[in-house]
Amino acid sequence: MSVEKKNTTLQDENFDGLTAAEIEAQHPADAADTIEGLDISDQVKFIKQLPVKDAADSIAEMDDLDQQALIVNLNKGLAARILEHMAPDDATDLLEGLEEEQRRALLNMVTAEDRAELNTLLTFDPDTAGGVMNTEVVILDQDLTADEAIAKIREEVEDKEIPYYAYLTDKKDRLEGVVSLRDLLLAKRGVILKELVKTQSLITVGYNIDKEEVAHLIAHYNLLALPVVDFGNRLLGVVTVDDVIDIIHEEASEDMQTMVGAGADETTDSPVGFSVRKRLPWLIINVLFSALSAWVVHLFEGNISEMAVLAVLMPIVANQAGNAGQQALAVMIRQLAMERFDRKRAWLSVFRELRIGLLNAMIISSLVFGVGFVVSGKLILSLVMGMALGVDMILGAVAGASIPLLLKEMGRDPAQASSIFLTAITDSMGFFFLLGLAGLVLLNG
Amino acid sequence: MSVEKKNTTLQDENFDGLTAAEIEAQHPADAADTIEGLDISDQVKFIKQLPVKDAADSIAEMDDLDQQALIVNLNKGLAARILEHMAPDDATDLLEGLEEEQRRALLNMVTAEDRAELNTLLTFDPDTAGGVMNTEVVILDQDLTADEAIAKIREEVEDKEIPYYAYLTDKKDRLEGVVSLRDLLLAKRGVILKELVKTQSLITVGYNIDKEEVAHLIAHYNLLALPVVDFGNRLLGVVTVDDVIDIIHEEASEDMQTMVGAGADETTDSPVGFSVRKRLPWLIINVLFSALSAWVVHLFEGNISEMAVLAVLMPIVANQAGNAGQQALAVMIRQLAMERFDRKRAWLSVFRELRIGLLNAMIISSLVFGVGFVVSGKLILSLVMGMALGVDMILGAVAGASIPLLLKEMGRDPAQASSIFLTAITDSMGFFFLLGLAGLVLLNG
Repeated sequence: MSVEKKNTTLQDENFDGLTAAEIEAQHPADAADTIEGLDISDQVKFIKQLPVKDAADSIAEMDDLDQQALIVNLNKGLAARILEHMAPDDATDLLEGLEEEQRRALLNMVTAEDRAELNTLLTFDPDTAGGVMNTEVVILDQDLTADEAIAKIREEVEDKEIPYYAYLTDKKDRLEGVVSLRDLLLAKRGVILKELVKTQSLITVGYNIDKEEVAHLIAHYNLLALPVVDFGNRLLGVVTVDDVIDIIHEEASEDMQTMVGAGADETTDSPVGFSVRKRLPWLIINVLFSALSAWVVHLFEGNISEMAVLAVLMPIVANQAGNAGQQALAVMIRQLAMERFDRKRAWLSVFRELRIGLLNAMIISSLVFGVGFVVSGKLILSLVMGMALGVDMILGAVAGASIPLLLKEMGRDPAQASSIFLTAITDSMGFFFLLGLAGLVLLNG
Repeated sequence: MSVEKKNTTLQDENFDGLTAAEIEAQHPADAADTIEGLDISDQVKFIKQLPVKDAADSIAEMDDLDQQALIVNLNKGLAARILEHMAPDDATDLLEGLEEEQRRALLNMVTAEDRAELNTLLTFDPDTAGGVMNTEVVILDQDLTADEAIAKIREEVEDKEIPYYAYLTDKKDRLEGVVSLRDLLLAKRGVILKELVKTQSLITVGYNIDKEEVAHLIAHYNLLALPVVDFGNRLLGVVTVDDVIDIIHEEASEDMQTMVGAGADETTDSPVGFSVRKRLPWLIINVLFSALSAWVVHLFEGNISEMAVLAVLMPIVANQAGNAGQQALAVMIRQLAMERFDRKRAWLSVFRELRIGLLNAMIISSLVFGVGFVVSGKLILSLVMGMALGVDMILGAVAGASIPLLLKEMGRDPAQASSIFLTAITDSMGFFFLLGLAGLVLLNG
């Protein structure tokens, strides 16, 4: 929350216009940004000057890739000291990104106690509760009084990250309850903790639960921390709210990528080969769908030979209906991602999109008909164009709203490739409406 | 965190398979979901049976629209009592959604103190720090000792939402520092608060700062609460981390909507007219862009009359390059949204997308060339098609990665309508490559 002003003995060396002391005086989150902007050799030079604890705090706030690049460029002894000073969950994240050999070398140089803890944490899947939890938990004997508990917390508080909750366990480490600092301050001094939590219904999560589900629980119940337990209900650690903010941000923006067939976990740091592997299958599916649209056009090739202007109009219909559909699609995917699924409400939303689609289609197709007629003077052709465009836009709106819902009903990710499916429908049907209608009224008529 | 099991005297009336007592025993967040699923008459009947505090807790967790629908269906006296029991920020949110007249009627029935507070909160723009802040803050005199402070907090804690921080102000209400419960528990008993915060650099936010910026600050600095001040540095309230989780989720998924020209703030609850007004301008821009693509086709209308098969191939090129470009676009928008802007890194990402685009283009266009040649037996046409497709896909990848970045450099939202701009480029240039190349080598050659 606050940044302590420090008196340091750092040299007045200059790093990108800031002295080492000025960088150190920043909040670790800001110092991390500054460090990321330095050359790797300056990064190393700077980190060597810092107290180890400060170095650990700043490095913990850096991006994964920058962190890893820096740590492997430090001498192993210093790197190990820094790891020891990081929160175990941050240290585990860092180690997970390293090569097997480097990881083992560093683990061999930390204290036996830290090594054992980090090795345990490394066994958890990083995408689960166990993989994101913090093991620095205040555990209290349930037979303590509230006052004894506060005294115990006072002793322990310096080591632990955010001890706003303390956890009560029985003799076999099974979680029996949770008390907040608030509960303890409010409690009558002599009351036994066990009494405080007697009527409590605990919210806990298994270590193997997906981290996105963990984030949902924390957001849904407005928790600051959620205890992680094993199958025997033994307390393993806690996930805190600050750990899930990034998970929530990542997850909420994943849909934007998956709807067009990019990988949910792709970032601009992903290796090129990784991104190609994620995207190529969907590009191949897209080309097959495109071939379907092309086949529809092929059915009317004769009409196009007679009236090449139809080919001129094709992109307008396809693009416009695709865009109208994507607007419905995006709003629908967001609803499904943000709210608990409510089938009735969701299908009512399709009806809402139909109404929006109808209005937009009427306005846009009237506009296109009007301009087309004024510019070309061709009444029937302009009517055909306006009609095909309008019908395809309405279809796009309904398809855009329905596709995520159908995917959801089929038990699939509502976003995955939804934009690709949508375009397949609006392209092929748009060409069918335009070329078919033109064939009926303009050529054979 | 925990749900108290309650002994209530609720009647055993049945609401969708649950008794009132069973619903009341749920966590307020879950009870809210249950209530939302009931008919409005059952909602009213159920709320009337609850203790007012429980009703307020559950209603605060309901969706905005459901909340408003319920509150206007309750008798005004009960509604006012419920408002009084809600946190002021939640009550303000609720009132903001009501008609002017209903709002005034309810405000007239709450206590004078609550009315004054709510009226003040209602003056803040709901999208700013002032609009999302909580005014229930523990304020301490900076001359207290740590022990006196704890005693004072014990007195006040029952009224305030999550008093993990207490704020120190001077005689003129100016914010002087912040102490956490953790600080107080750690401090030596006799130490004066002023001494504790002497070297503190406070992170605060002005009341008129956009709520998304507030969310960024809380996420960046891993805060549990951020004090909100006026221009004179007087403390107005705090924004807590649980209040920003929804903001972060909403904001992260906004880009998906704005990239295709839907409104950032559209939801499936938005009135149809609101959505039409948001989307129609972009649809009109899109139809203008489509007209541009159509004009490119028009330039080559003669070629199409001679070779209608070109019209068959057009949708494949346009759709495929559009899709490849959207994949790059989505990944790039996410980078710009999640990280502090780093110009060098961002432009390097464009280079990365170029490499991905090259690989995907080579594979897909070889595939299309091969299949095209085998099916049609036309070597030159298949080559032209493969080439136009490949070049347009590469262009799409570069354009998709560059558009958000260019928008950002121009000081605009990187997502806004980016997909519309992209499609304009991939469509028009795709047609130009395909029809132009075909004209050169197949018709005039």
